[in-house]
Amino acid sequence: MGSGFGQLFRVTTFGESHGGGLGAVIEGCPPGVVLDLDAIQRELDRRRPGQSALVSARKESDRVEILSGVFEGRTLGTAIGLMVRNTDADASAYAPFKDKFRPSHADFTTETKYGLRNWAGGGRASARETVARVAAGAIAKQVLKAQFGIEVQAWVQSVGEITAEIDPLTVTLEAVEANPMRCPDPEVAAAMEARVRAVRKAGDTIGGVIQAVAIGVPVGLGAPVVDKLEADLAKAMMSLPASKGFEVGSGFAGATMIGSAHNDVFVPGREPGEVRTATNHSGGIQGGISNGMPITMRVAFKPIATIFMEQDTVDSQGRSTTIKPKGRHDPCVVPRAVPIVEAMAALVLLDHALRHRGQCG
Amino acid sequence: MGSGFGQLFRVTTFGESHGGGLGAVIEGCPPGVVLDLDAIQRELDRRRPGQSALVSARKESDRVEILSGVFEGRTLGTAIGLMVRNTDADASAYAPFKDKFRPSHADFTTETKYGLRNWAGGGRASARETVARVAAGAIAKQVLKAQFGIEVQAWVQSVGEITAEIDPLTVTLEAVEANPMRCPDPEVAAAMEARVRAVRKAGDTIGGVIQAVAIGVPVGLGAPVVDKLEADLAKAMMSLPASKGFEVGSGFAGATMIGSAHNDVFVPGREPGEVRTATNHSGGIQGGISNGMPITMRVAFKPIATIFMEQDTVDSQGRSTTIKPKGRHDPCVVPRAVPIVEAMAALVLLDHALRHRGQCG
Amino acid sequence: MGSGFGQLFRVTTFGESHGGGLGAVIEGCPPGVVLDLDAIQRELDRRRPGQSALVSARKESDRVEILSGVFEGRTLGTAIGLMVRNTDADASAYAPFKDKFRPSHADFTTETKYGLRNWAGGGRASARETVARVAAGAIAKQVLKAQFGIEVQAWVQSVGEITAEIDPLTVTLEAVEANPMRCPDPEVAAAMEARVRAVRKAGDTIGGVIQAVAIGVPVGLGAPVVDKLEADLAKAMMSLPASKGFEVGSGFAGATMIGSAHNDVFVPGREPGEVRTATNHSGGIQGGISNGMPITMRVAFKPIATIFMEQDTVDSQGRSTTIKPKGRHDPCVVPRAVPIVEAMAALVLLDHALRHRGQCG
Amino acid sequence: MGSGFGQLFRVTTFGESHGGGLGAVIEGCPPGVVLDLDAIQRELDRRRPGQSALVSARKESDRVEILSGVFEGRTLGTAIGLMVRNTDADASAYAPFKDKFRPSHADFTTETKYGLRNWAGGGRASARETVARVAAGAIAKQVLKAQFGIEVQAWVQSVGEITAEIDPLTVTLEAVEANPMRCPDPEVAAAMEARVRAVRKAGDTIGGVIQAVAIGVPVGLGAPVVDKLEADLAKAMMSLPASKGFEVGSGFAGATMIGSAHNDVFVPGREPGEVRTATNHSGGIQGGISNGMPITMRVAFKPIATIFMEQDTVDSQGRSTTIKPKGRHDPCVVPRAVPIVEAMAALVLLDHALRHRGQCG
Repeated sequence: MGSGFGQLFRVTTFGESHGGGLGAVIEGCPPGVVLDLDAIQRELDRRRPGQSALVSARKESDRVEILSGVFEGRTLGTAIGLMVRNTDADASAYAPFKDKFRPSHADFTTETKYGLRNWAGGGRASARETVARVAAGAIAKQVLKAQFGIEVQAWVQSVGEITAEIDPLTVTLEAVEANPMRCPDPEVAAAMEARVRAVRKAGDTIGGVIQAVAIGVPVGLGAPVVDKLEADLAKAMMSLPASKGFEVGSGFAGATMIGSAHNDVFVPGREPGEVRTATNHSGGIQGGISNGMPITMRVAFKPIATIFMEQDTVDSQGRSTTIKPKGRHDPCVVPRAVPIVEAMAALVLLDHALRHRGQCG
Repeated sequence: MGSGFGQLFRVTTFGESHGGGLGAVIEGCPPGVVLDLDAIQRELDRRRPGQSALVSARKESDRVEILSGVFEGRTLGTAIGLMVRNTDADASAYAPFKDKFRPSHADFTTETKYGLRNWAGGGRASARETVARVAAGAIAKQVLKAQFGIEVQAWVQSVGEITAEIDPLTVTLEAVEANPMRCPDPEVAAAMEARVRAVRKAGDTIGGVIQAVAIGVPVGLGAPVVDKLEADLAKAMMSLPASKGFEVGSGFAGATMIGSAHNDVFVPGREPGEVRTATNHSGGIQGGISNGMPITMRVAFKPIATIFMEQDTVDSQGRSTTIKPKGRHDPCVVPRAVPIVEAMAALVLLDHALRHRGQCG
Repeated sequence: MGSGFGQLFRVTTFGESHGGGLGAVIEGCPPGVVLDLDAIQRELDRRRPGQSALVSARKESDRVEILSGVFEGRTLGTAIGLMVRNTDADASAYAPFKDKFRPSHADFTTETKYGLRNWAGGGRASARETVARVAAGAIAKQVLKAQFGIEVQAWVQSVGEITAEIDPLTVTLEAVEANPMRCPDPEVAAAMEARVRAVRKAGDTIGGVIQAVAIGVPVGLGAPVVDKLEADLAKAMMSLPASKGFEVGSGFAGATMIGSAHNDVFVPGREPGEVRTATNHSGGIQGGISNGMPITMRVAFKPIATIFMEQDTVDSQGRSTTIKPKGRHDPCVVPRAVPIVEAMAALVLLDHALRHRGQCG
Repeated sequence: MGSGFGQLFRVTTFGESHGGGLGAVIEGCPPGVVLDLDAIQRELDRRRPGQSALVSARKESDRVEILSGVFEGRTLGTAIGLMVRNTDADASAYAPFKDKFRPSHADFTTETKYGLRNWAGGGRASARETVARVAAGAIAKQVLKAQFGIEVQAWVQSVGEITAEIDPLTVTLEAVEANPMRCPDPEVAAAMEARVRAVRKAGDTIGGVIQAVAIGVPVGLGAPVVDKLEADLAKAMMSLPASKGFEVGSGFAGATMIGSAHNDVFVPGREPGEVRTATNHSGGIQGGISNGMPITMRVAFKPIATIFMEQDTVDSQGRSTTIKPKGRHDPCVVPRAVPIVEAMAALVLLDHALRHRGQCG
């Protein structure tokens, strides 16, 4: 209740930023899929702190241990248990503030809801929780590719006001990973990097937008009512720490358009019987169901709340006070959030691929 | 699987735009709540076609019949069954196109996924399905108000490029209902109405944005990981027909900000022990859990796909053809979507209110 | 929450014994299945009151109306809404007892849990609720047969101490339906019938046992841990009114055996590569997963609580009083419960068949 | 999907008998509950192999590690992750049979369903999986006692044909734990022990029955339709390895009774307004909802399938062969299953207690 995601391919996570470790149980994984364990680790490495000067200096190797569900390199079809230890948790940076609520953090809401909280770090609301999602998503990616030919790619589209225009159809993993900003336009990436460095120097943080595309999605994934494909993608992305907005296809810009400009007319595809759309304002989803075109989406992330400046706040008795946080934090969440967005998209797509196969054969 | 929403307060809908009728089963409703049946009907009347010259001319009285779960005017706590008959379904407008796929509609994806479809209307993907959600949401609203003091209000913020600036804290139902656009700024509403009339005259349609606020939400609803309050709101809104984007609080604008500008510092509230934030970029949710401030959100709706113009498309064999739809359709979805957005927000909030009461007492 | 059953093929019911009607929403039905609507009605007729002198005299035609999800005789794959009206509800028999709790009925627990109840009849706990399950199960049966070759048959094994020994492998629907007791051994059926008539004459009721078998179940349905096939069958059967016990395969008798007698050794089957077991103490399920042998189970039903005798009880203030119920009730539940048990078995098997297809392809 | 149990208090397990370890994620635990970690370990010790000469000699300390969700000795309300390492896994006993299917084991069904299996031990279907359930159940027990005053106790009622008559109202943990059979009647326990020793000496195994009672359950837990309290208990118990039958209250014996003997008449209780029943054939549940009386149930366990005798079977190509298993196995499952039955009952009761609190306040 609250930490699980998916119906047929279901991931349930546990773990806090400061504690024994984090992990996940994956239920419903198709059996017999050869898993590349190095590829799982590579995804965790993309998410891991300390990978560049642009991100948190916390030193976590984030080695994943698979405890069950994989045998002689293949998925068993039964529950996969996986775990990542916390090795560089440092509660001392948090102890001075254990009775104060950091602005725009989860401290106040967590403590009021539950009556107590693990004040060392952000607890369950910490972005560190996503390590378990990335590991599960890395498995989902391999199953998606092996059984359905689906691939997911995300990248940084904007940092603050600096925006790149990237063609979702030609973007590559190599281009995304070519710089620490994970923006496949090297010039814009350099500008973003300069902006992040300046913000970090000022003790501040900055927001950004991640764009993602899923290629190779067959027609038919999703459902026409509540479990629309875009609805589950929206839930997936808005369940990430710091996300404030989600768009599919034309998104908010679509709300400014007229129908004759927005409609995606159907045209015959290259293969006999194949159908395509001339444009893709729908973002690859119509009536809640994938239409075979690339699925395109965007996720907005606010600036991380931990700024190294003195701010007004209240203490646990509700009295006015000030706080100046310490600790190791990212000045901008989006570079590390790229693999996280990909992981969440993969979880949604695999779940719906299995649901479709179950219902429709 | 696919038509149900919520965990403790769960709504499962059925029904197509052209068929015997639509309805819902509501599980988990708190018992003993006095239901104002007229108020439920009023919500349906707000959503109903034919209510003004700006919306579809289909004539549906949308009278709701409650078949179970309510006894002598009060909720029994057991499953509520409710139904609305289709009385003005007219398949004849669709018959000429039964073998063609209307652009940006669900026809193609539905038929490809399932191998067949109810070609009379949009089937389950039709906006008519939301009649069941509005009825369920109307019950949720009454429970929310009676047991938790929570109220939800939505309104039209923009149509095309025409945008109103509305203060979420002072908006009233009366102001929203004062004009058929459901935009509480009468001057902007008039401009919107002119725009919609012009679009309709051209046989075209136009998109828009709905804004919503929830007032009186106590601190503590939501969860820190997957079932974040904003994640469930996002799923709720993105499960609506024609929605393309969702924002909470600062939304996409937040992605352009720096942390020192975005953070909502805590200040003591008016009551002893009460805590508020000086700003509300968080939109009333922090770490996935409500913080007691108004919950603010926006939903983008694309222009409705049914335009009365000839368009390219393909037929069910994938051959090029053209289509010029007929039927009774809205030129702009947002006026009628206002009560729908409110209903979905109410479903999410009540579900989380019950979940919180269950877990935390 | 509480009225839904199944994961991929999910049925959610509504309705009380005395109210507007009863019905169900079926989610996840495979598309394109040709439905025999008469066959659905026949299942309802098997469950319906008034069908013989051995059952309740309540006159309900139990005509099912399908409101959505079926188009031109085939399943659409989208939510099926179905409804049965109550036409012979008679609250007057209950009015004298509205402030008294009928012994071993749900009156006391319902009123204490919820603070109120629909005192006309048994509300949601009434066996009348199962009309919706039988309708849904009738659809599941048709899908099971069409897509998976699976068939389910139940029959009355015992009434009181009178027991029939029936071979699950040779029992037929015709033999079961050949007498109103639904016991395929005509001599034992006659003895049962005499027993039921005597009990009814005395104003009393009597319990019984239903046995069921599923034939044609392929190897592989189920799951090894929580969602074991027998666990979901147990939940299905124990969710029926008046059921007190469930067994699969050897059942309680198996608890008295030694392993060398209980083990089902594997033997090659008739087809190349086919595997069978020499005995079937496992009841067709091993490690939570079907093994290809017939799935055998038994369900115990207590005597119906409504006896036409004066009994001690308490009123809604907890004061001692007496009650002598009136109304139209069955002297023995098992003849009418036969199609209900079949329906529940079909729901479980179809859900697991779809889940298996989804996960394992 | 398949390894999770519960709605509000939800437990999802992972792990195989031979692999890195086993564990569980617990979602929805009430916050602020002081956890006695030693009491959790004591429950694991009751389930652990090697505790007496009557059970498997496998040496597992079964030390539980709690990775998240508990802080300074109290539950956080967020996901609890817990893990038990496998330390004495010995695949060598299984290697000779990796291509043969042990009779009445899960080998054949698992391999056919998934196409492969972890042949070292029983994989997910192994009774070792229950270590995670016992750990989670031990937490549930503590929450049940602290917040709801509910206690659960199970004991061995029979082994083979040897049966004890135990009064569920006076049985104590001390009496149950006084002998390794966990039968609170010492004379019957001695006879059971002799029987088990004889069976073991013969290389055979024997079945048995566990009885359980829940005391202090308030009126109102459960639901009237699908999620009847006895239905969820049935699923819980029938999801245990080797269980073949479940009864609540009068069980199968109730099916032989007449209503006038079976009905539990209501009588005023000792406290003003309190209501009791004079008898308890209902087993503490009426209409799916607890009635305040002790909840009584029985679970039948077949003899464990691993017997140290040569048996016919087939190999993975379906060819006839023989098998004579080795390994460390229990001659009778019921002594170790006592804490497992208690754990499952506690999981069901806590989930329903939270659900009731959520819905009904």
